[in-house]
Amino acid sequence: MLDRIRIVLIGTSHPGNIGGAARAMKTMGLGDLAVVAPRCDPRDGEAHARSSGSEDILDRMRHDDTLEQAVADCTLVVGASARSRTLPWPLCSPRELSARLPGELRPAEARAALVFGREDVGLSNEELQRCHSHVHIPTSDSYGSLNLAAAVQVLAYECRQAWLTTAPASAPEPFGVEWDNPLASHDDTERLFTHLEHTLTGIGFHDPANPRQLMARLRRLLLRSRLDSMELNILRGILTRIDRATQKGDSEHSR
Amino acid sequence: MLDRIRIVLIGTSHPGNIGGAARAMKTMGLGDLAVVAPRCDPRDGEAHARSSGSEDILDRMRHDDTLEQAVADCTLVVGASARSRTLPWPLCSPRELSARLPGELRPAEARAALVFGREDVGLSNEELQRCHSHVHIPTSDSYGSLNLAAAVQVLAYECRQAWLTTAPASAPEPFGVEWDNPLASHDDTERLFTHLEHTLTGIGFHDPANPRQLMARLRRLLLRSRLDSMELNILRGILTRIDRATQKGDSEHSR
Repeated sequence: MLDRIRIVLIGTSHPGNIGGAARAMKTMGLGDLAVVAPRCDPRDGEAHARSSGSEDILDRMRHDDTLEQAVADCTLVVGASARSRTLPWPLCSPRELSARLPGELRPAEARAALVFGREDVGLSNEELQRCHSHVHIPTSDSYGSLNLAAAVQVLAYECRQAWLTTAPASAPEPFGVEWDNPLASHDDTERLFTHLEHTLTGIGFHDPANPRQLMARLRRLLLRSRLDSMELNILRGILTRIDRATQKGDSEHSR
Repeated sequence: MLDRIRIVLIGTSHPGNIGGAARAMKTMGLGDLAVVAPRCDPRDGEAHARSSGSEDILDRMRHDDTLEQAVADCTLVVGASARSRTLPWPLCSPRELSARLPGELRPAEARAALVFGREDVGLSNEELQRCHSHVHIPTSDSYGSLNLAAAVQVLAYECRQAWLTTAPASAPEPFGVEWDNPLASHDDTERLFTHLEHTLTGIGFHDPANPRQLMARLRRLLLRSRLDSMELNILRGILTRIDRATQKGDSEHSR
């Protein structure tokens, strides 16, 4: 289970935090680290110094240009966040995340990503809206400034607690029942959103020049339902049919 | 909280079970009972005899012709069931339901319905597919035949546990965060499904004469996402726009 949890660090400024995150992960049995568009050299000596014996994680670390790439194969994407600033989004505590993980990761092909933002400004709204859920680490009302590697440590600890304390066979799956289809991957889901936006623009319901919160609200709705692969195909099929019926289909999105 | 939980009995055959259900409810502080198309006289003396001091619940009991009517104003509809026989559906245990109820019922306008089927054949698939979730009472592998009033007793007990043991202010709301819009009611949601089926038929994606599982799958997807009222309006707006764009709108569904 722990080998299918990826820690994703976006836009990190301090190489020491990358090393510290690797160390935090290793103490809890995690090993899959991805850095996305770091604002420092993740191979800096400081990263190795802070990793202190977990250089193997740094050596195997993924380097991605975008969040999209870093989580493309993941079936659950959780963003560490205070909360979405523009639109409420499903939110859990670290302990609630811990309770969910064994069920989420029971299917052999399932993969989870825990996404951490920049030291100064966290995750952008666009990044937060690519997550199925957000996780908020409770901090003091008077001082909430958690170090990036410390935040990774807390969530990695809860991942390990999930693995230690919950027999995978007894934890509920995402819907509390054995499902009939695997959950959709992140990249298939993103292709659906691209197609949806195209179709809604085509029928004049959506104006990309004046988007308001339409796509964010539809993302929130469909992401929290945890689409399975057949549902995703049904929705793609409906969109393709609408495209054809309104004669605005284009071959790029209609397949 | 307990005054916003309705017990719905569908197609009950034995008036004694209706009285027994009323008694079970009253012991746990519930009072809102609805019978739907009973296969007996719910005012039979046997009902009053078994109610044993909870006649007030029988006197105030709702009489509905359909499940639709009985749960029209409810924001959460949970069906007591082994499990859906044709399509897996979100399923919880009584204890999980108990943990959910305080958050579900925190908004003042929220109402929950617990729906129980016939003594012999339970709930139909069509009825089960109108529920947000199913609840299964664990029983012995070798003997699982739970009496109807006994099933009501178990779930009423868990409702009371929810009320006693969980401070409403600390239980998570459905999405773990304060939401921006109230959840959609059952009847608004059903109108959406009617409109959706109409539109999908209009664009040739759905054939009511050969429905397969299309509408059941779309119901399952949207019911488990717990639509809020704005999301529901957005979806209605999209459907209306598709109807117009394909010039198959009809005034009945396009409003």
